[in-house]
Amino acid sequence: MELFDLIVIGGGPAGYNAAGRAGHSGLKTLVIEKRALGGVCLNEGCVPSKSLLYSAKVLDYANHASNYGVTVTGASLDQKKVVARKDKVVKTLVSGIGMQMKQAGVKVVAAEAQILKKDAEGFHVTADGQEYVGKNLLIATGSAPVVPPIPGLREGLEAGHVMTNREVLDLQEIPEKLVVIGGGVIGLEMASYYNSVGSKVTVIEMLDHIAGPTDREISNILMKNYEKKGITFKLGYKVTAVEKNAVICEDANGKSESVPADKILCSIGRRAVTQGFGLENLNVLLDRGAIKTDEQMRTNIAGLYAAGDVNGVSMLAHTAYREGEVAINTILGKKDHMRYHAIPSVIYTNPEVGAVGETEESAKAKGMDVEVVKLPLMYSGRYVAENEDSRDGICKVLVDRKYRRVVGIHMIGSYASEIIYGGAMMIETELKVEDLQEIVFPHPTVCEVIREALFEVK
Amino acid sequence: MELFDLIVIGGGPAGYNAAGRAGHSGLKTLVIEKRALGGVCLNEGCVPSKSLLYSAKVLDYANHASNYGVTVTGASLDQKKVVARKDKVVKTLVSGIGMQMKQAGVKVVAAEAQILKKDAEGFHVTADGQEYVGKNLLIATGSAPVVPPIPGLREGLEAGHVMTNREVLDLQEIPEKLVVIGGGVIGLEMASYYNSVGSKVTVIEMLDHIAGPTDREISNILMKNYEKKGITFKLGYKVTAVEKNAVICEDANGKSESVPADKILCSIGRRAVTQGFGLENLNVLLDRGAIKTDEQMRTNIAGLYAAGDVNGVSMLAHTAYREGEVAINTILGKKDHMRYHAIPSVIYTNPEVGAVGETEESAKAKGMDVEVVKLPLMYSGRYVAENEDSRDGICKVLVDRKYRRVVGIHMIGSYASEIIYGGAMMIETELKVEDLQEIVFPHPTVCEVIREALFEVK
Repeated sequence: MELFDLIVIGGGPAGYNAAGRAGHSGLKTLVIEKRALGGVCLNEGCVPSKSLLYSAKVLDYANHASNYGVTVTGASLDQKKVVARKDKVVKTLVSGIGMQMKQAGVKVVAAEAQILKKDAEGFHVTADGQEYVGKNLLIATGSAPVVPPIPGLREGLEAGHVMTNREVLDLQEIPEKLVVIGGGVIGLEMASYYNSVGSKVTVIEMLDHIAGPTDREISNILMKNYEKKGITFKLGYKVTAVEKNAVICEDANGKSESVPADKILCSIGRRAVTQGFGLENLNVLLDRGAIKTDEQMRTNIAGLYAAGDVNGVSMLAHTAYREGEVAINTILGKKDHMRYHAIPSVIYTNPEVGAVGETEESAKAKGMDVEVVKLPLMYSGRYVAENEDSRDGICKVLVDRKYRRVVGIHMIGSYASEIIYGGAMMIETELKVEDLQEIVFPHPTVCEVIREALFEVK
Repeated sequence: MELFDLIVIGGGPAGYNAAGRAGHSGLKTLVIEKRALGGVCLNEGCVPSKSLLYSAKVLDYANHASNYGVTVTGASLDQKKVVARKDKVVKTLVSGIGMQMKQAGVKVVAAEAQILKKDAEGFHVTADGQEYVGKNLLIATGSAPVVPPIPGLREGLEAGHVMTNREVLDLQEIPEKLVVIGGGVIGLEMASYYNSVGSKVTVIEMLDHIAGPTDREISNILMKNYEKKGITFKLGYKVTAVEKNAVICEDANGKSESVPADKILCSIGRRAVTQGFGLENLNVLLDRGAIKTDEQMRTNIAGLYAAGDVNGVSMLAHTAYREGEVAINTILGKKDHMRYHAIPSVIYTNPEVGAVGETEESAKAKGMDVEVVKLPLMYSGRYVAENEDSRDGICKVLVDRKYRRVVGIHMIGSYASEIIYGGAMMIETELKVEDLQEIVFPHPTVCEVIREALFEVK
């Protein structure tokens, strides 16, 4: 029975990052992961999807090359090669995390964990027939796709014509007709990919807009952009049944419709994974199916922490990183607390969406007094030089009128994904608009549009 | 004779931006520009080069598509179309600046300016036969390429086989052999473009390294990268003569060599433009050929300001923007001063270079006690997913040991151009490493590597 300062269950972004930080800080740390290090994000989520999307981008470039004075006679994508490349990319990165764990002195056990009990020694956990005891225990078991009780859905998953985020990344053939149930980030990214590579894609969304809490104007631009590229969006539609070659849905008036489908992606949301590893032996407090945590990522049980999707708060890999770090700092006795008001989010469609902080909608709901400055990305010379196909990108900056601080930035257009972290910095630092105006941005860039927007604040 | 609060001579980045800010602040403003609004940067510099480089990128994508599972046949670039597209991009943006001037209530005179005198009324300037008087005068006449007295160089410019930044952007045919004299930013970007489109490119540089003050390790990575792509670099070589079809140069030992050339780009530097517009009538103080300015962009003459390349300090468009703003704030009586320690710089090669603040070399020269953290961009999942061809990118973060503040960031790799402004923010805000660690960066991105580097600081 080996004793640890910290046992981490789950080797995804919350878990491996926390374990690494803990190891470097001198905590004797064990991470237990039943599948592969990197979790859903690296193995069947954010990273593999980006590998696929980049291949699609290369194809898009070739197909639109003539707009830039380049002639291409024939461009085609080999799905099997694209998936094989994706697997290689993932393998490289998984082994990188293994190296990181080694460098941090973290022990990794590749097995299913089972929590036995908590006693005076600490948390007793078994894995692969061994018993381990941790003074602290971090739950980082992540989330799993929600599969609602729609007739035919579960059967479809078993039969293979219905997919979750996992299977959609491994398709060896490009489906002729793809139906995506759920127009959130995962659904949109995959719709984007399969649209680029030639599928006829239909996105069915229950709400009257896509992209969830994204700024409404930006989600509309994104939708119009993809409508032009051939995706059909069915907003305000509820899926009532899934068949072998069709998705049955009905509109707000209850009118039923059958949408033909060779493959169906179910991407309507994710739920915290709180079962199957003995959590019930600890009497931990849950909140709507997720582990309830405070600002220090503590649960109701002393020494027990939860970070990442399993606490159900933000369900983003980078939130998970930070939550894991807050947990470790708390264990180490360092003052830290989790803040959710400046967490960026990205949709890796083409154009990309990058956002952080309040939207007009959320600010209004909170009764905040904000000024909204909106600029077209056409303001940027680089944007004009690099976007012959479509120049509908915008940047919105939301400023609190009283304190003159940035509270939100929302962009759609090239590089938004790599630009938006600076927006997080603007929100977190709470600098006034006048101070931010003194920061020099390089020219010509797309990020400059944020700077210009700061000068448009009244 | 019309009276203005401010007359601006030169409608480039320093001039048009300052005029716009001034107009929006209620100053009656006139900008006089003899060529096109936007100056060298927009018309024959930063922006047109980015248009060309993006076309080259599209071609590069096509040529390397197979690495991403995409088959492309017959990719070729039509130089005439690329140049025509560039012209269209520039035209769009020039007219955009005209609109901005209109919106700011700025009067624009398209003519050569001539300063007559300063008297109790203000600065008297003529243009297009009219006389204007400004209470304040901002000189923003920019810079011109240095053409050193090398035998054959000036004659070559006249004959057309030698080019500056202006002519190289308008070449209607791709030269078989291009020789670039000067391995600075302009030289490297054009070398990159013509290498991509099929020229045999040789870069001749007097120093023992390319890319001027760029972090030495990064400039080496860039050079090795382009050597693999077929560019020849002749470091430590001095050009002694230019002929119709060759550049004669000699190495440190005086050994002479002839490098064949169909076209020759002279890009060895730029000098402030202080003549030809009556500046001599004001007795302004110069410093090594440039107008001497203080932290408020004031010259030795009350009411006379200089911003942009003409003051010879930084020679970057975004420095010019900020200097113009400082000048306007000073005129308006707002407290502001110019700082040069956090001005980013970018080289738009492929891979891109983005840098801000101290390098290891400059920190050492200043006797600063810095810790240098270096990470490969391979740390980023996105970088791995998007870079099959070459994964030599790195990110360096320099931290002042005593104050634990970031003093420099240097990157080579994808998106560096759009990421680096955040580094400027880190330096300007003077936040401690511990505080910056609390900023959440989106995953998976390349910018995340900066965040990770912050965690590697001891």
